[in-house]
Amino acid sequence: EYTDIIQVGARNMMNFALLKELSKLKKPILLKRSLSAKIDDFLSSAEYLISGGNENIILCERGVQSFDDMTRSTVNIASIPYLKDICHLPVIFDPSHSIGIAKYVPPVAEAATVMGVDGLMIETHYNPANALSDGYQSLNFDSFEKMYRKITKLHSFLNEKS
Amino acid sequence: EYTDIIQVGARNMMNFALLKELSKLKKPILLKRSLSAKIDDFLSSAEYLISGGNENIILCERGVQSFDDMTRSTVNIASIPYLKDICHLPVIFDPSHSIGIAKYVPPVAEAATVMGVDGLMIETHYNPANALSDGYQSLNFDSFEKMYRKITKLHSFLNEKS
Amino acid sequence: EYTDIIQVGARNMMNFALLKELSKLKKPILLKRSLSAKIDDFLSSAEYLISGGNENIILCERGVQSFDDMTRSTVNIASIPYLKDICHLPVIFDPSHSIGIAKYVPPVAEAATVMGVDGLMIETHYNPANALSDGYQSLNFDSFEKMYRKITKLHSFLNEKS
Amino acid sequence: EYTDIIQVGARNMMNFALLKELSKLKKPILLKRSLSAKIDDFLSSAEYLISGGNENIILCERGVQSFDDMTRSTVNIASIPYLKDICHLPVIFDPSHSIGIAKYVPPVAEAATVMGVDGLMIETHYNPANALSDGYQSLNFDSFEKMYRKITKLHSFLNEKS
Repeated sequence: EYTDIIQVGARNMMNFALLKELSKLKKPILLKRSLSAKIDDFLSSAEYLISGGNENIILCERGVQSFDDMTRSTVNIASIPYLKDICHLPVIFDPSHSIGIAKYVPPVAEAATVMGVDGLMIETHYNPANALSDGYQSLNFDSFEKMYRKITKLHSFLNEKS
Repeated sequence: EYTDIIQVGARNMMNFALLKELSKLKKPILLKRSLSAKIDDFLSSAEYLISGGNENIILCERGVQSFDDMTRSTVNIASIPYLKDICHLPVIFDPSHSIGIAKYVPPVAEAATVMGVDGLMIETHYNPANALSDGYQSLNFDSFEKMYRKITKLHSFLNEKS
Repeated sequence: EYTDIIQVGARNMMNFALLKELSKLKKPILLKRSLSAKIDDFLSSAEYLISGGNENIILCERGVQSFDDMTRSTVNIASIPYLKDICHLPVIFDPSHSIGIAKYVPPVAEAATVMGVDGLMIETHYNPANALSDGYQSLNFDSFEKMYRKITKLHSFLNEKS
Repeated sequence: EYTDIIQVGARNMMNFALLKELSKLKKPILLKRSLSAKIDDFLSSAEYLISGGNENIILCERGVQSFDDMTRSTVNIASIPYLKDICHLPVIFDPSHSIGIAKYVPPVAEAATVMGVDGLMIETHYNPANALSDGYQSLNFDSFEKMYRKITKLHSFLNEKS
C-alpha cells in the first residue's frame, strides 16, 4: 500500500464487510460518522474495526442531518467532549463538510478546538471557485493559513489557561 | 411592570397573539427559538415583535431537536454567525438548556463565545442536586464563577487577536 | 361555557399551567402532539390532564418535524397503532396539517383509517383559494364529500374483512 | 449474471461509482432511499442510473431517520403519491425495515397500498425468533399469507371503488 491512513467515509460507516477487512490491517483508520448515525452506531462501527485487532482508529465528526437546513448539516460540536468521555479513541472534526460554507469554517474550527478536539480536517483548494467538487466549502491557501495561525494561538491560550 | 426584560420561551415562539401584545411594549424581549423552528420561522416571530414598534429584541438559541438524542437537544452554535450575518439583532446562547448536562455547559459556553455570541444565559443553583427543576443542567456558584473567569479571559484573547 | 370540546394546539402541548387548569374541567380535551415531542412527552401531557380528574382525553397526531421537508411535516401514521397498544385513549389523526397539501389529504386520511385511527380531523373551506389561513391544505366541500364517502366505504370494508 | 434484479441498499444510495457501473447494465435496479436523503438526493441517484442508459429503475422507500425513535425509522408513506406525481418511476415500499416491528408490518403494508404504492417488499423467515438478522421485523409464513390475502382484497376493493 502507498497510503499512510485510510478514511472510511460517512456513507460507508455501516459497510460492515469493508470494516471487517480494514480491521485486519495495521494502518490507522479514520472513521467518519454517518449523517444519520446515533453515537452508539458510530461506536459499534469503531468496535468492528478494533475487534479485528486494529486499534489505530480515529473518530471523525462531520455534522448530523436535522430539520434545520440552514447549513449543509447541523454542526454537532457537543459530541466531541461526549465521545472523549465515553471512549478512549481520538476525536477529530471536519468543519468543512459539516457547515458547507467556507466563511464559517474558521469559527467552527475554533469552536471545535475549544471543545477539546484532537484534530481538524479542513478542505482547501488553490482556487475554490473552480473546484470540481465542494468548492463552496473550501478555503483557499491564504484563508487556510490565517485560520491555522488563529487556531494555533487559541490552542496555546487554552493550554496555558487550564 | 416590575420586570426589566421579558422572556418568550421556546414553546411560545409561535404564540402570535402573545407576540402581538408584546410588540406594543417598550421593554426588551428575549425571544427563544422553538426546538423545531427553522431560522425563517424564528425571524418571522422576531418580525412580529418589531412590526408592532418594539425594536429591543434579543434572539436566543437553545438547541434544536434532532434524531441525535445524546444530549437534551442538538447544540446548534453554527446559527450564531449565520443569524448575525442575516439580521441586525443581538444573538445570545443558552448552553444549559441546549446540552442539558452541567459538566458540558462551560465548554459549550466557550464555543459560543468563539462563534461571536453577544451573550450567554446560564442556569445556576446554589445546590443543583436538590433543585426543583433542571438541576441536572445547572452549575453551582463555584463552577459558574470558574466558567465566568475562563469566558472573560477567552473573550479578551479573541478581541486582542483580531 | 359554550364549547363541546376544547382543543390544545400542538404549540401548547407542554403548557403545563394550561393543562393543569384544563384537567379540572369535565369537558373532553383534544390534545395535539407537538411537532418535536417524543411519544413519552405526548403521553406525559395526557397524564397531566388525567391526573386532575378529566378522563375524556383524545390524542391527536398531526405529523412530526424531520429533515424531510417534502411536505409540511412528516406524516407519522405508524404512531396510531403504537399509541393504541400502549394506552387506552382514543387516537385521531389530522391529515390536513400533517401533509399540508390538499390533494394528498384524502389518501393520507385513508391510510390513517387503515391503521385503525378512531377519528379524523379535516380542514375544509368553501373557497380554499381565498381562505385567510391554511387554504393550501383545505378541501372544498365537494372534495370533502367525495373523501367522506370513500372513507366510509373503506371503513365498512375493513370491518367486514376482519 | 444469475440475478434477475439488483438492489442498491440505503447505505449505497449515494455510492456514485457503483451507480455509474450499474447504469451500464440492462437489468432492473431497485434503489433504496438512504435514511437521511431528501427526495431530491433520491431522485439524483436515480438519474445517475438512468443517464447511463438503464431505465428499469424502481424506487424503494424504507422510512427516514427522525427524532422520533418510537420505531426503527419514521414510516414515510406520504412520499409514495408525492414521488409518483413528480417522476415516472415505479415506487415500492418496505414496511419491514421502516417500522422494524413484525406486528405493525401488515397495517403499514395496507397503508402503503392505500397510498397507491406499486409494490411491497416484506421480510419473512420460517422462524423469525431464530433469524440471524432482522428477526424482530420478519413475518413467519402464516402471518405473511394472512397479510397477503388482506392486501389482495384491499387492492381489489380500491380498484373497483375508483
